[in-house]
Amino acid sequence: MLLPQINEPGQLKSLSVDELTSLAAEIRQFLIEKLSVTGGHLASNLGVVELTLALHYCYNSPRDKFIFDVGHQAYVHKMLTGRMDQFDTLRKYKGMCGFVKRSESEHDVWEAGHSSTSLSAAIGMAVARDLKGENNKVIAMIGDGALTGGMAFEALNHIGHEQKDLMVILNDNEMSIAPNVGAMHNYLSKIRSDRHYLRAKDELEMMLKKIPAIGGMLAKTGSRLKESLKYMMVPGVLFEELGLTYLGPVDGHDIHKLIETFKQADNVRGPVFVHVLTTKGKGYKPAEADSYKWHGASPYKIETGQVLKSVGNPMYTDVFGKTLIELGEQDPRLIAVTPAMPSGSGLIPFSERFPDRMIDVGIAEQHAATMCAALAMEGMKPVFAVYSTFMQRAYDQIVHDICRHNANVMFAIDRAGFVGADGETHQGVFDIAFMRHIPNMVMMMPKDENELRHMMKTALEYNDGPIAYRYPRINGLGVHLDEELVPIPIGKWETVREGEGYAVLACGPMVQVALEAADQLKREGIHLQVVNARFMKPLDEEMLLELAENGTNMVVLEEASEAGSLGSAVLEFYASKHIFDTKVSLMGVPDRFIEHGSVKEQREETGLTAAGVVGEIKKLMSLHPYEIGKTQFPS
Amino acid sequence: MLLPQINEPGQLKSLSVDELTSLAAEIRQFLIEKLSVTGGHLASNLGVVELTLALHYCYNSPRDKFIFDVGHQAYVHKMLTGRMDQFDTLRKYKGMCGFVKRSESEHDVWEAGHSSTSLSAAIGMAVARDLKGENNKVIAMIGDGALTGGMAFEALNHIGHEQKDLMVILNDNEMSIAPNVGAMHNYLSKIRSDRHYLRAKDELEMMLKKIPAIGGMLAKTGSRLKESLKYMMVPGVLFEELGLTYLGPVDGHDIHKLIETFKQADNVRGPVFVHVLTTKGKGYKPAEADSYKWHGASPYKIETGQVLKSVGNPMYTDVFGKTLIELGEQDPRLIAVTPAMPSGSGLIPFSERFPDRMIDVGIAEQHAATMCAALAMEGMKPVFAVYSTFMQRAYDQIVHDICRHNANVMFAIDRAGFVGADGETHQGVFDIAFMRHIPNMVMMMPKDENELRHMMKTALEYNDGPIAYRYPRINGLGVHLDEELVPIPIGKWETVREGEGYAVLACGPMVQVALEAADQLKREGIHLQVVNARFMKPLDEEMLLELAENGTNMVVLEEASEAGSLGSAVLEFYASKHIFDTKVSLMGVPDRFIEHGSVKEQREETGLTAAGVVGEIKKLMSLHPYEIGKTQFPS
Repeated sequence: MLLPQINEPGQLKSLSVDELTSLAAEIRQFLIEKLSVTGGHLASNLGVVELTLALHYCYNSPRDKFIFDVGHQAYVHKMLTGRMDQFDTLRKYKGMCGFVKRSESEHDVWEAGHSSTSLSAAIGMAVARDLKGENNKVIAMIGDGALTGGMAFEALNHIGHEQKDLMVILNDNEMSIAPNVGAMHNYLSKIRSDRHYLRAKDELEMMLKKIPAIGGMLAKTGSRLKESLKYMMVPGVLFEELGLTYLGPVDGHDIHKLIETFKQADNVRGPVFVHVLTTKGKGYKPAEADSYKWHGASPYKIETGQVLKSVGNPMYTDVFGKTLIELGEQDPRLIAVTPAMPSGSGLIPFSERFPDRMIDVGIAEQHAATMCAALAMEGMKPVFAVYSTFMQRAYDQIVHDICRHNANVMFAIDRAGFVGADGETHQGVFDIAFMRHIPNMVMMMPKDENELRHMMKTALEYNDGPIAYRYPRINGLGVHLDEELVPIPIGKWETVREGEGYAVLACGPMVQVALEAADQLKREGIHLQVVNARFMKPLDEEMLLELAENGTNMVVLEEASEAGSLGSAVLEFYASKHIFDTKVSLMGVPDRFIEHGSVKEQREETGLTAAGVVGEIKKLMSLHPYEIGKTQFPS
Repeated sequence: MLLPQINEPGQLKSLSVDELTSLAAEIRQFLIEKLSVTGGHLASNLGVVELTLALHYCYNSPRDKFIFDVGHQAYVHKMLTGRMDQFDTLRKYKGMCGFVKRSESEHDVWEAGHSSTSLSAAIGMAVARDLKGENNKVIAMIGDGALTGGMAFEALNHIGHEQKDLMVILNDNEMSIAPNVGAMHNYLSKIRSDRHYLRAKDELEMMLKKIPAIGGMLAKTGSRLKESLKYMMVPGVLFEELGLTYLGPVDGHDIHKLIETFKQADNVRGPVFVHVLTTKGKGYKPAEADSYKWHGASPYKIETGQVLKSVGNPMYTDVFGKTLIELGEQDPRLIAVTPAMPSGSGLIPFSERFPDRMIDVGIAEQHAATMCAALAMEGMKPVFAVYSTFMQRAYDQIVHDICRHNANVMFAIDRAGFVGADGETHQGVFDIAFMRHIPNMVMMMPKDENELRHMMKTALEYNDGPIAYRYPRINGLGVHLDEELVPIPIGKWETVREGEGYAVLACGPMVQVALEAADQLKREGIHLQVVNARFMKPLDEEMLLELAENGTNMVVLEEASEAGSLGSAVLEFYASKHIFDTKVSLMGVPDRFIEHGSVKEQREETGLTAAGVVGEIKKLMSLHPYEIGKTQFPS
């Protein structure tokens, strides 16, 4: 066993290629065992074992900068940089992060989380290096999926222009999270599958030898013809045209070849593009067979690959997916657009039922949003199915192309609120704050999965502009699902528990939390009113005026940034009406990034719990005693 | 004169190519004359006269969809679609918009404003067309500058994949707003300048004829060698590799050739990419000579091209540019990054003084933001110089790569607030609302250009994370500029006018508006306190507590979205402190998009004027009379 002896990456340098190969096998075994208990991004990490080993063998981290795109494929890197003993706490509260994390190690130099940022980071670090007169290497690793993200192209365009020394490693596993789409993918596939390169090169050489006249011809024909012959030998002409030296493709599971290629790359001046072919899930049969399912794995049985799923109520995502099919049957204009998340967003069944009406655009949120605007303007009813956190990429397009056009685009915002183990890079806590101020936007959140269905119907029947429904990553409440779907009047909240003097205005899963708080308070004779504030925009102004007239003290409760979200909207409303004597207190996500853990732990950390609500109501009661007992409630 | 007879584009179809060529000259004359009075985007429109004529000649708008990227190059299109008589009101309040505008004409099918959206719009319209079983053409025109925007690549990747019939026209004038940068630009230049294509093709054919053995060889060598020969004939291999059929390059000022090329394109199945070479400013010598200066022109003298500039106080942008040089002398870590706006952002003098420390990344806000994070993490002090409206493109990168890393990135946010004639697509009214809720962010706005200088120093000396200063497009107040720059304590506001009972908390140019209101009220014996609320985040909590203790009634005044901006932050602060008896009223930009006009007109429309403040204070006085006279003021 070599693995237990590795505490820091420098120790790899004394190993032979054979030893590194053995080490790779040990690393795989370790990951398969550990992740069977904790879950995690198994498949992508199994795919980069040799690549990560070869990099640490050839270069000197942290002096040389290793930049992992997305950052969920850094488990091997974490193992080699002294964090082997922390794998039991992977993705757990206060445990090791599932992504690259600067606070964990000096070897973690770039925290990603969202895709396609590594090339921008690389050129930034290379520019800084040169200005400082230093000479370390800068190495970015990017997947073929992430390469379709627009900002990766922006960076490539800049890298090709600047001609700084840096290395881009394309980790090409023909798959991002979902099977890859797009012209770039087709292009890479062509390179990958083309067995003619070497043969063509050989035959050309032979031809030149046999017929010397050609050589003479070529010399005369000028640069263009010679250049065109280059394309025969160099598969990555697209990257060469952008100013990077292309090397590869190289087998990403052959440590020897990887090391040779890196040596070759070191001799190149300017930016070099190394095309590495890897297999996601390599070395673990179940994951190799369905690397897509194994992207983010739950705990599993090692022998069979059987996932140990906890049984629970249906997820909101699944209810969304099922309901979308029902609506798709009713309305042929309905079309779903996803940025590389067909499965995560629950769209697979819809795409099977309506193959022409589900469009996966790849990792391209900006493009997805703008295309939705165009679809809507041509009379379709597009639903942009997107995670809250990834929608951040499309803010400008939402403002300009959707809301300014007042286009009938529906947003299905999944993973709204806390997301648990993925942590700070994936929390869906900003979308209310960054969408609420955009003119023409309507925004809803259901209290349960049944209401989600009605909201989807509401959105489909709404024809006055953009409309969003956001829902959490968690399981639903297991409530009965109505068969008949009835649109909810726009901007209409509902009181789900009558009360007196004090009210909680809550949205989404927080309605349930508020109801629990109401139950606790009821035992003390306090009747807390609970309002399902299911529209973040527009507000239910009528109800807000009524609450103010009744002198009700309020808490606005939301699993969203306290700054700028629903609570803020309520305060603004009263200010705009010059109603200054209403007491409104806010409970939301505080002004810091919330780390990984379970949703429950994240709620506890931020006080968004029944106990938290009870505490806040009692504080309000002490500050602003309300004369209880005007109304009679059943005890 | 043909021009006066053209009321709708169908009339072009009966004209000969010679007549179209004459018409082009008339159009140029019209534009040069009209814009000499109104100003506007002269150079880019002079560049697309023939292209627009040829499109309207060959296709049938609005049945066929013409999608202009950015949309400021649609003047000729506007002329040909019945809006010739509106050019006197171009970019004026309630007049004709400088961009494509759906409400103006059925021929305006896509409103852009921000760059690089046309390809997404095109594929969206093509998908909708095919689902509806219709057969109109979809034609997107994109500039070579806009092609570097990441979302354009996302769309190309998708277009190449979908293989729908549509046409992408690359309007290649080797220039966007600034001289173009990037590898894509170098690539296009190579195509543009390469005179060897045809020669290489000829010589190859000759070679094949002379040496029949080669033909035999080729047949045997397999597809790759044959394919590589294709690259010799097809200059646009990069686009071909992405799945589009490349045609061109074609002279964009030769109507005959354009028409021929479009006919050729019509025979292509799937997406076709037409590379058109144009000259910005074509036909007007001063604009041809300096097309960059003539991008967005002020009124000018036709004979000389001399710009009729109104003399005024220095612009904030210029003060920024000058001060940045001073700071650059002091601190070698200072580096400026711009997304294609070196001149607009006032960075040219800095780039001349420090050529290595000004990086223009092209139209690539996402990449710019993330690269700034990397620069900061490597010890540099990057300033991301960007217009408020364009920063919208980088929201996700600001959240994840800058704020989550707590990187020492400075933001110089230009064009914050109303921008005047560019109108709704360029208003800088959302940045407070979309940045304030991001953890770790510090955000300032100066009351005058002198304070801007001190804020720039403040930002440079701040080393605890991201910090932004935002400033308006307008001229400064002409105040004295201090030589010595002194950092302002973070979160410290200042009272610029003492008062009693009522206060305005204002930021940026609104401080001046509040002072004017105070002057007016003073004549009535009302002493309005005016606070320069120069930090949007963090707030001056001490001052807010003091105001609350004094029982001061407040108006928060800002040229920013009333939802989610500074006023909202003030309300949240009091709510968080459970201070419920303070009267705070909000004056900001209402929940709708504000159209083009002068800044003055935009302020009047939204009530953000001294008169508006006086009115709001008087309303507060009637609702919440405050016992005036506790304090003595000089009368």
